[in-house]
Amino acid sequence: MFKSFASDNNAPVHPSIIKAIEEANRGDCLGYGDDELTKKAKEKFKELFGQDIDVAFVLTGTAANVLSLSSMLKPFEAVITAKTAHINIDECGAPERFTGCKIVTLPQKCGKITPKSIEKVLVGVGDEHHVQPKVVSITQATELGCVYTKEEIKEITSFAHKNNLLVHMDGSRISNAAVSLGLDFKEFTKDAGVDVLSFGGTKNGLMIAEAVIFFNKSLTKYVKFLHKQTMQLYSKMRYVSAQFLEYLSNDLWFQNAKNANDMAELLEREIRKIDKIKIIYPVEANEVFAVLPKEAVKKVQEKSFFYVVDERKGAVRWVTSFNTTKKDIMDFVKLIKDSLKG
Amino acid sequence: MFKSFASDNNAPVHPSIIKAIEEANRGDCLGYGDDELTKKAKEKFKELFGQDIDVAFVLTGTAANVLSLSSMLKPFEAVITAKTAHINIDECGAPERFTGCKIVTLPQKCGKITPKSIEKVLVGVGDEHHVQPKVVSITQATELGCVYTKEEIKEITSFAHKNNLLVHMDGSRISNAAVSLGLDFKEFTKDAGVDVLSFGGTKNGLMIAEAVIFFNKSLTKYVKFLHKQTMQLYSKMRYVSAQFLEYLSNDLWFQNAKNANDMAELLEREIRKIDKIKIIYPVEANEVFAVLPKEAVKKVQEKSFFYVVDERKGAVRWVTSFNTTKKDIMDFVKLIKDSLKG
Amino acid sequence: MFKSFASDNNAPVHPSIIKAIEEANRGDCLGYGDDELTKKAKEKFKELFGQDIDVAFVLTGTAANVLSLSSMLKPFEAVITAKTAHINIDECGAPERFTGCKIVTLPQKCGKITPKSIEKVLVGVGDEHHVQPKVVSITQATELGCVYTKEEIKEITSFAHKNNLLVHMDGSRISNAAVSLGLDFKEFTKDAGVDVLSFGGTKNGLMIAEAVIFFNKSLTKYVKFLHKQTMQLYSKMRYVSAQFLEYLSNDLWFQNAKNANDMAELLEREIRKIDKIKIIYPVEANEVFAVLPKEAVKKVQEKSFFYVVDERKGAVRWVTSFNTTKKDIMDFVKLIKDSLKG
Amino acid sequence: MFKSFASDNNAPVHPSIIKAIEEANRGDCLGYGDDELTKKAKEKFKELFGQDIDVAFVLTGTAANVLSLSSMLKPFEAVITAKTAHINIDECGAPERFTGCKIVTLPQKCGKITPKSIEKVLVGVGDEHHVQPKVVSITQATELGCVYTKEEIKEITSFAHKNNLLVHMDGSRISNAAVSLGLDFKEFTKDAGVDVLSFGGTKNGLMIAEAVIFFNKSLTKYVKFLHKQTMQLYSKMRYVSAQFLEYLSNDLWFQNAKNANDMAELLEREIRKIDKIKIIYPVEANEVFAVLPKEAVKKVQEKSFFYVVDERKGAVRWVTSFNTTKKDIMDFVKLIKDSLKG
Repeated sequence: MFKSFASDNNAPVHPSIIKAIEEANRGDCLGYGDDELTKKAKEKFKELFGQDIDVAFVLTGTAANVLSLSSMLKPFEAVITAKTAHINIDECGAPERFTGCKIVTLPQKCGKITPKSIEKVLVGVGDEHHVQPKVVSITQATELGCVYTKEEIKEITSFAHKNNLLVHMDGSRISNAAVSLGLDFKEFTKDAGVDVLSFGGTKNGLMIAEAVIFFNKSLTKYVKFLHKQTMQLYSKMRYVSAQFLEYLSNDLWFQNAKNANDMAELLEREIRKIDKIKIIYPVEANEVFAVLPKEAVKKVQEKSFFYVVDERKGAVRWVTSFNTTKKDIMDFVKLIKDSLKG
Repeated sequence: MFKSFASDNNAPVHPSIIKAIEEANRGDCLGYGDDELTKKAKEKFKELFGQDIDVAFVLTGTAANVLSLSSMLKPFEAVITAKTAHINIDECGAPERFTGCKIVTLPQKCGKITPKSIEKVLVGVGDEHHVQPKVVSITQATELGCVYTKEEIKEITSFAHKNNLLVHMDGSRISNAAVSLGLDFKEFTKDAGVDVLSFGGTKNGLMIAEAVIFFNKSLTKYVKFLHKQTMQLYSKMRYVSAQFLEYLSNDLWFQNAKNANDMAELLEREIRKIDKIKIIYPVEANEVFAVLPKEAVKKVQEKSFFYVVDERKGAVRWVTSFNTTKKDIMDFVKLIKDSLKG
Repeated sequence: MFKSFASDNNAPVHPSIIKAIEEANRGDCLGYGDDELTKKAKEKFKELFGQDIDVAFVLTGTAANVLSLSSMLKPFEAVITAKTAHINIDECGAPERFTGCKIVTLPQKCGKITPKSIEKVLVGVGDEHHVQPKVVSITQATELGCVYTKEEIKEITSFAHKNNLLVHMDGSRISNAAVSLGLDFKEFTKDAGVDVLSFGGTKNGLMIAEAVIFFNKSLTKYVKFLHKQTMQLYSKMRYVSAQFLEYLSNDLWFQNAKNANDMAELLEREIRKIDKIKIIYPVEANEVFAVLPKEAVKKVQEKSFFYVVDERKGAVRWVTSFNTTKKDIMDFVKLIKDSLKG
Repeated sequence: MFKSFASDNNAPVHPSIIKAIEEANRGDCLGYGDDELTKKAKEKFKELFGQDIDVAFVLTGTAANVLSLSSMLKPFEAVITAKTAHINIDECGAPERFTGCKIVTLPQKCGKITPKSIEKVLVGVGDEHHVQPKVVSITQATELGCVYTKEEIKEITSFAHKNNLLVHMDGSRISNAAVSLGLDFKEFTKDAGVDVLSFGGTKNGLMIAEAVIFFNKSLTKYVKFLHKQTMQLYSKMRYVSAQFLEYLSNDLWFQNAKNANDMAELLEREIRKIDKIKIIYPVEANEVFAVLPKEAVKKVQEKSFFYVVDERKGAVRWVTSFNTTKKDIMDFVKLIKDSLKG
């Protein structure tokens, strides 16, 4: 059996998390987040980000983004983001449907945008014929496996705030980014000027746990209503909280992401040795994008499924996880090599 | 420590469910419901309801209702329901916000509505000045602890279908209803003419698992898009599926609901012996509503929290769960009696 | 030919208004309201209501209400209104669809609501499971032909503001109300604590002209975007402005409404003389509601169409207009009398 | 006084239209479009387009587009259009807010798109992670003053229908396009495969009159409810109908558009004689886009206001109208020449 590199959400849940859920399963407690475990889990987030934040736990990454955006936008305002952003192409229009807002898209480089490209779409400000730009949303790590540096983020938030814009970060793979940067979460989010953060967990070994972290307290007054209205006020909240509590203690988030990143690096290194395959983006987190001969794609997919992201170019995506092993990588590389032999 | 009778969602998860989740945690598998466990869990639902159904797993009861309604309604149509319905008063307007539709409310008796009351609001049909009545939504068991008989449901669905209306059932406590009626799920849902069912699990011992069951296949064409757009396309779906698989095998749903209902009956019986307390609705599932002296309410709440549902009348709600014991009941009854002594 | 009493919108446009439109048709000017006539028309409103108001011109009464409500409500908030309110039953759900908000309905008396009835629905404030009551909407004159006194309005706005609620007035027939009360517009709107007013014109002799008047300046910051987004930013605005300018000069609004009210009073007086007909609401503006034998209804409708508002009770509505004459009334009364002869 | 070339909506109303409105102002009639004039006006449209169409009259161009799109789209579907489209940049997000749908934008050439560019965004069809492409919207004449040929339109509709897409045409300046092409309306709309048409009137000499024409009858079942819900069911509809009746009789639409187009052509011809000014798009309807020195822009604007459409490039837009005269053009050209003298 070959490991699948289709997605980090194909991985199971880290055993410590299952254990934490089991331990949370003691007796009755209040629902909807008014329990002790939820208080502790939120306290954990405050240890990481400072006391002056608000936290809402949600159940899917799309929900994290929709809750974030709905707290930042009035229905005639717009969010500016990369064309490749998850909120733009992978959420079936949930942001537009729920907020009523427009998404304005920018060209990107490995999923990253710049103040320069944002500036170009800052037109019609104050003019009632146009939607009003209000939020810049960046993804960290990006959907194409790259990572914004702290400085790049600061440039964006600084430009945004000067132009009366707020900044949202889709941190679906934020732990992979933190490991890649060698930074604490806080340094490249709150300290770098981000206003609202979708903090992902499910892709990095959790079962079902995402969070929205509000650094900008002017946005939190009505969050509890939006939390319920986005259908995210989970009744037995303690089972999400238990996951985050375990995850943020004992560096589990770090170990999981470190392994995934290391394995992506190993995969990249081994693939670069193969002539007929081209790595098309810098590998900075846990994703490797490559172009390889179409016949090879089919042969490998039969034994180990993964996604073709651009049919025309033959571009594919391989994602590593917290549970990927060196043997998984080496077996997969061999599989690829064999497929190229014809 | 006294058991809390605040809500059935304050209970923990049944140990077999935790075990099922643990067992699901083996190796990688496809995400978003394309895995084996999800196939099996859906097959389980088909064993119960017949092969000609569609099933979508969701994460909260509100989400189940919103997905149901959004599959049935165009944005100028209306859903008719009891004033006390969860979709009307406990979902922070999520149905209106997501569908854009109006909720038309009816007077109720213990949470139940009748064809007669529905008929009164069937006005303006075909008239473009008015929203168009399209869905009748009933809750089984109701929010006030009552259970529609199979015949009552048939009367409603028959009347509805004759009037070009669809019927939604909010089955957040459907297992309690099934036990109460002594019927299979199918008999009072699909066989009784219901079109779409929100099938609850979380209140009856599951961790996080709700489902929407489509009996009316003309409504399912676009469900997968609505499923994603309502933010319910959970990536690691196997962990929800595993819960339902266990729940619907070995009669776990039955045992859990049976215990809850039995304990509510016991509580009712004991409370009826107390002079100063009045039971205000028939106890047909796992909820007891009573009026008791305000001083007593406060005293009891200090040791065992529960909700006052009508401040003015001093009406309170007590909910039993799969894990409520006879001792829990007798201790609670004693606590109440003591509080009345003054 | 008999005059129809079906609706005041069946009447034509007052000749002075046509003349004003014709006079506005001179040369080019800026579009979207940046023209001189629009400035003058807005100035006219400021003469009536004070300088500290904002005015937006719109094209239909439904649009006036939707723009008003969308400026006052966040999408998890609710508007409280009479069950008979136009926003509740005659706008095909436009308020819900556009704002995403819930409408909470109250019992009414001749279309009027009271602080007492509002208080009963002020539940769940601050509780994220419930929509948050935010706006009280009253109609002046009501949909059933009654008129709130200045004192009744003050009681409502005072109660509302104490409870952190805003007050909207649907003034689709505001001129009829002003005439009925013998008051200036300002006295029973701005001075009485109303926050936002839908100021109607089309039902009282204008061609196509409604306005939203914002007395509460904290609500106006984003109105221009909502104005465009509700599709009401009419390009050749001068033709609406010209109507209001003429209407508010030379007391045209007063004369038109006075005639309509007087004719309703005459109709009422004459109808009261007929044994078999019962007037069912006080006639305080330009509408008369009556119950008469069903055979008579049909006979009269054949010669002069009007609406049956309650099929079961045989209740009908007759509306008078700026152009209704005494002869119209006396002919109509004779027609009714004849129909009753059998 | 110089004529302004800012917009065709800065022009007044054609005198025949004022006369038609005046003539419509006779006696009472039914409201909301149930009157004789509305029947006749719709009949006029059927004479032009065939009996098998449906027509809805609306009040603004944005409303025409929103009603069109809301009749064609489910809320998880998308409309594909040129980046420069009015629905994308000039409607303050009304389409997104009202329909909940995404707008997917394409690169354009003089406002025109092609099947090739549409094909590139037909990704994720059937995949629930993505919005589903459903409508292609083209503008005729385009926002940049160009006109699609009948063949170009057929290529688009043919490609669209093959790919299960519908085609909307924003015909805000459709009369200018018809004159430019030398074709009847029907030939390049219905006969060319367009499904729904926003038929503009206000920019070509009408006071307030736009229409939505449904050629695809499968889309009309619920239009009357959407018509009301988009706040376009105008009570005194006869005054809109009277305009269209006059407009479509005696070729008024043709004469008005012909004059506007001729004057644009004259302006273009005269401008081309000036060295320092560059015409940047083909002049095919009633709009001229040019780049001229920034100092000149300011000087000319002082005496005759117009819009700068691209600040950086110094690109400006001049629009001619039904009432533009040769003298207007020659005076304006002289003004420009003078401004360039320094």
